[in-house]
Amino acid sequence: MTDFLYGHWAVMESLRAGRRSFEQLLVAENTEEKGFTGEIMATAGERGVRIRRVPRRILDDLSNGANHQGMVLRAGDYQYSTVEDMLALAKEREEKPFLLLLDLLKDPQNVGSLIRVSDAVGIHGIILQERRGVGVTPAVVNASSGAVEHLKVAQVTNLVQTMKEIKERDVWLVGLDIGPNVPTLDKTNLNIPIGLVLGSEGEGMRRLVRDTCDILICLPMRGRVGSLNVATVGSVALYSAWQARGWPGWGAPKPPVKPS
Amino acid sequence: MTDFLYGHWAVMESLRAGRRSFEQLLVAENTEEKGFTGEIMATAGERGVRIRRVPRRILDDLSNGANHQGMVLRAGDYQYSTVEDMLALAKEREEKPFLLLLDLLKDPQNVGSLIRVSDAVGIHGIILQERRGVGVTPAVVNASSGAVEHLKVAQVTNLVQTMKEIKERDVWLVGLDIGPNVPTLDKTNLNIPIGLVLGSEGEGMRRLVRDTCDILICLPMRGRVGSLNVATVGSVALYSAWQARGWPGWGAPKPPVKPS
Repeated sequence: MTDFLYGHWAVMESLRAGRRSFEQLLVAENTEEKGFTGEIMATAGERGVRIRRVPRRILDDLSNGANHQGMVLRAGDYQYSTVEDMLALAKEREEKPFLLLLDLLKDPQNVGSLIRVSDAVGIHGIILQERRGVGVTPAVVNASSGAVEHLKVAQVTNLVQTMKEIKERDVWLVGLDIGPNVPTLDKTNLNIPIGLVLGSEGEGMRRLVRDTCDILICLPMRGRVGSLNVATVGSVALYSAWQARGWPGWGAPKPPVKPS
Repeated sequence: MTDFLYGHWAVMESLRAGRRSFEQLLVAENTEEKGFTGEIMATAGERGVRIRRVPRRILDDLSNGANHQGMVLRAGDYQYSTVEDMLALAKEREEKPFLLLLDLLKDPQNVGSLIRVSDAVGIHGIILQERRGVGVTPAVVNASSGAVEHLKVAQVTNLVQTMKEIKERDVWLVGLDIGPNVPTLDKTNLNIPIGLVLGSEGEGMRRLVRDTCDILICLPMRGRVGSLNVATVGSVALYSAWQARGWPGWGAPKPPVKPS
């Protein structure tokens, strides 16, 4: 299978991570080879990826009309990981496991946004429910600013079964739920081996998924509008968990800052 | 001037808040009057707003092709507030001032998303730089899920001047900056009269805006991708500040939960 990855950062981070096979980099014919575009094309060259100039409408087609920024990378399949890989990474870094579990999220923008934040807080892996939920599509790669290319993501057919296996490895599953009868996130010690669980847009976690969590916490809300976007809730929870750990890994050398 | 507000929650919250004048509710001709759509139409009826059935393509035009969900509300201008109004609200609620200042943000989605979170944490007001930045457009109302209709928003022509006036009222201005030489947000006591300051997408705060802040803090990042979306940074900072205050207002009766 071939993926058509689009957008500057999706293409650049995929090339940098080098975990996929690459067939060709398609660039809009009027694009000048300078600035960040030039850097991406140079990186493709270093990786031995052939660059082809094509009319912009071909890029429009390949990206289904998304904002491709004049660049589409023909690449092999995304390489999924396993929960074992993630726990091994935690061990290698000498950190308590830090996982994110997404139950049937539907919007690639939300999934991509959560993956981008997961990268920022140094998560060990992200677990997606396979059926009906979003996988790592080009839209997700784009929405994650390419972060997903560097991270470990597993797709599982039965999230509840996977949750049970994770619990057996002494990881606590903490579900993000709706208040006001659920404790707020600061009432729980998040400096533990943790898997944060988020439910789908609108519906939240499925009942069995919620029941399989060890702890439920919530983000308080006092406004007139009764809910928050799942990516917002997840971002705040991911940062709270990293903060509770004392920001391990913070202060290491940083890559250049990107426009958002 | 007439605004064409579109989308279920934008229309509903605008009607509920009742701060604008309303001319007409335009509904796609094939829409059934049931469920949430029915509730919105009933609310419009109670407010004496005339409902008119129109072909869907008219709604497409009026919303510039956005996802209008079959509903457009012709309404009068958004009613802006002043910093004085915001400080008065803080006093009325017996809370330390809690403000958000946005320096030249350009993306309505980011502005709307930050306004939605501001509503959730009970902010007293949001201050926008007028020239070149986004105002409260229908796209912002939609992206905020209508939350902006209930909040106090000021548009100012000179943000630095307004910042100086705010400082004279003993409010601390805390700018969100980039690390690693800036203290992380947990190293600063945020349980103070506070104005959080966010810079624009890609460029951050302008130099004079940054220099006028009393304190700079940052959100740590340890990932491969070098930055986070400004709405993500702002959401985490807003929640940190509310948490530092001890979640005042949390637990009050809630409106119904909405799908996100």
